[in-house]
Amino acid sequence: MNNFKNLATIYDIIKEMPVKDIEAEAKAIAHQNQLTKPPGALGILEELAVFLASWQRKTKPSLNSVQAIVFAGNHGICSQGVNPFPQEVTIQMVENFKAGGAAINQLCEVNGANLNIVPLSLDTPTADFTKEEAMSELELCEAMAIGAKSVNLESNLILLGEMGIGNSTISSALAASVFGGSVERWVGAGTGSDQKGQAHKTAVIESGIKKHGSIRDLKALQAFGGREQAAICGAILAARNARIPVLLDGFICAAAAAPLFGTSRGSLDHCLIGHLSVEPGHKLLLEAMEKSAILDLNMRLGEGTGAALALSIIRGAIACHNNMATFDSAGVSSK
Amino acid sequence: MNNFKNLATIYDIIKEMPVKDIEAEAKAIAHQNQLTKPPGALGILEELAVFLASWQRKTKPSLNSVQAIVFAGNHGICSQGVNPFPQEVTIQMVENFKAGGAAINQLCEVNGANLNIVPLSLDTPTADFTKEEAMSELELCEAMAIGAKSVNLESNLILLGEMGIGNSTISSALAASVFGGSVERWVGAGTGSDQKGQAHKTAVIESGIKKHGSIRDLKALQAFGGREQAAICGAILAARNARIPVLLDGFICAAAAAPLFGTSRGSLDHCLIGHLSVEPGHKLLLEAMEKSAILDLNMRLGEGTGAALALSIIRGAIACHNNMATFDSAGVSSK
Repeated sequence: MNNFKNLATIYDIIKEMPVKDIEAEAKAIAHQNQLTKPPGALGILEELAVFLASWQRKTKPSLNSVQAIVFAGNHGICSQGVNPFPQEVTIQMVENFKAGGAAINQLCEVNGANLNIVPLSLDTPTADFTKEEAMSELELCEAMAIGAKSVNLESNLILLGEMGIGNSTISSALAASVFGGSVERWVGAGTGSDQKGQAHKTAVIESGIKKHGSIRDLKALQAFGGREQAAICGAILAARNARIPVLLDGFICAAAAAPLFGTSRGSLDHCLIGHLSVEPGHKLLLEAMEKSAILDLNMRLGEGTGAALALSIIRGAIACHNNMATFDSAGVSSK
Repeated sequence: MNNFKNLATIYDIIKEMPVKDIEAEAKAIAHQNQLTKPPGALGILEELAVFLASWQRKTKPSLNSVQAIVFAGNHGICSQGVNPFPQEVTIQMVENFKAGGAAINQLCEVNGANLNIVPLSLDTPTADFTKEEAMSELELCEAMAIGAKSVNLESNLILLGEMGIGNSTISSALAASVFGGSVERWVGAGTGSDQKGQAHKTAVIESGIKKHGSIRDLKALQAFGGREQAAICGAILAARNARIPVLLDGFICAAAAAPLFGTSRGSLDHCLIGHLSVEPGHKLLLEAMEKSAILDLNMRLGEGTGAALALSIIRGAIACHNNMATFDSAGVSSK
């Protein structure tokens, strides 16, 4: 997994990814069906427990060690005035994460995740994609390697989040590049753009798509992406190689992963989606990637907050799956 | 609050209920707007924190002591064959709750709620409502008093759940009585009825409505309800009197509370809804009572499981609200 030298080696990694363990999955389903409840009555909780079993390769999944990683990056596209906040806010928020003052700190604390903050060259924003490719192949691969190395391979579950002023524009560009259609439908308010701001974001992205074309694979990351998106892809691949399930946050994370999906549809099979963002492009992205979100709480913060909240639901799912009595052991009639 | 002698005294309690504290609410909103995030970006989490502040009457709400109460009852309507499970399952599940083997035990454990199980005269089911009123006024008031007395008045939040074979039929009857319309639209699969079973449930309820009429107030509980539904209403009123916010579980709890809403629309102002049940009547009930659910996880178990899961979201909301840094304290630019 230390082979993120160039895109060719990364495509090789993707070709050789492990798949879920269908034997562990079958055993987990059989176990579920003996628990003291009508079959299916715990709904998505049952699916989550079976999902974790199939990737962790054990009937009763573990959640002893959960890692949350927040990647941060800065973006040359901000020179086009796509975000009302100054780029300094990215580094200010990284300091806030490190000091424990942000929303993600509280949610990791309350739900038992170890939080790691990984800033990526914040003083050197990527290039403005309306003028040139956002990153060179080397820069892309370096950011992916940092993401991959950030994964603690002893973890039972990895949560991925991000911070980066301007990265909702990056994300709309990635989604439009990978999945096509009018650019407008992928664009939302982001951190605080009004209607005029959104029209401007759309025009900026259209200009980028015109320059680089609609790219579906990892080269879309190189043309449009940020370092935090590249790191997310690297972390997704590192986790996959170690059969660690991944819980993605909202719109930015889904858009970051879109070029992986465009490269190989199965590459996100080990990924869950924490929440559905208010950002309108998120719903479209999830439909395109055949995923559904665990939570829908009208949130649009990023940082991994939707993933950290969804962790609490997964903890509930695993607590029920691992610890409930069976009909036999509890002496409860199953019919 | 020890005055549940007869319905007249209970109606007096309802007339004198305290209301939310709008000053605490305003202070909580002002506090939210200083936290290091775009305003509104935490969506429903922000609303939950402000809601708790307005009932607990403090800018930073507490969740040190959370009580979950599961009420259990048996129902004469089961003699009409409305449920494929035998009534003995109610007592078997109560034993399972007490032994710590049910889903609600795991979810209370993982989310930090103290669980109390309150069985109500399980050996003496209520009467068959197609033949007579389910309870006498005295039986109704006694069950409501037990519910009220079950509330630990030191709690910061009360979760309410239930168990009772046959109580989805009771709940559809209560909903149809209070909110009207065709009986069919209030009827779902419950614990495991097929299409034929559902048609039978509908016919049984229609027969009950024909006998007792469409009653909108607490007399609906007397005509159709179970003791666990009456206890839920008693607990809701006791909590309200102590300004303790309440988190209701799914369809059965909402239907239990419907006659309170029918008596006085504001009587559920301090109640949150944990999750949206698969049971189709739940969505209609919430619309009628102008409520929305925190979670939608395709669940239909009852026991308070949807409420106990939603507690994790509320814990996240309060952790963010109480502990996040402000723009000033963290040195983050707010514009």
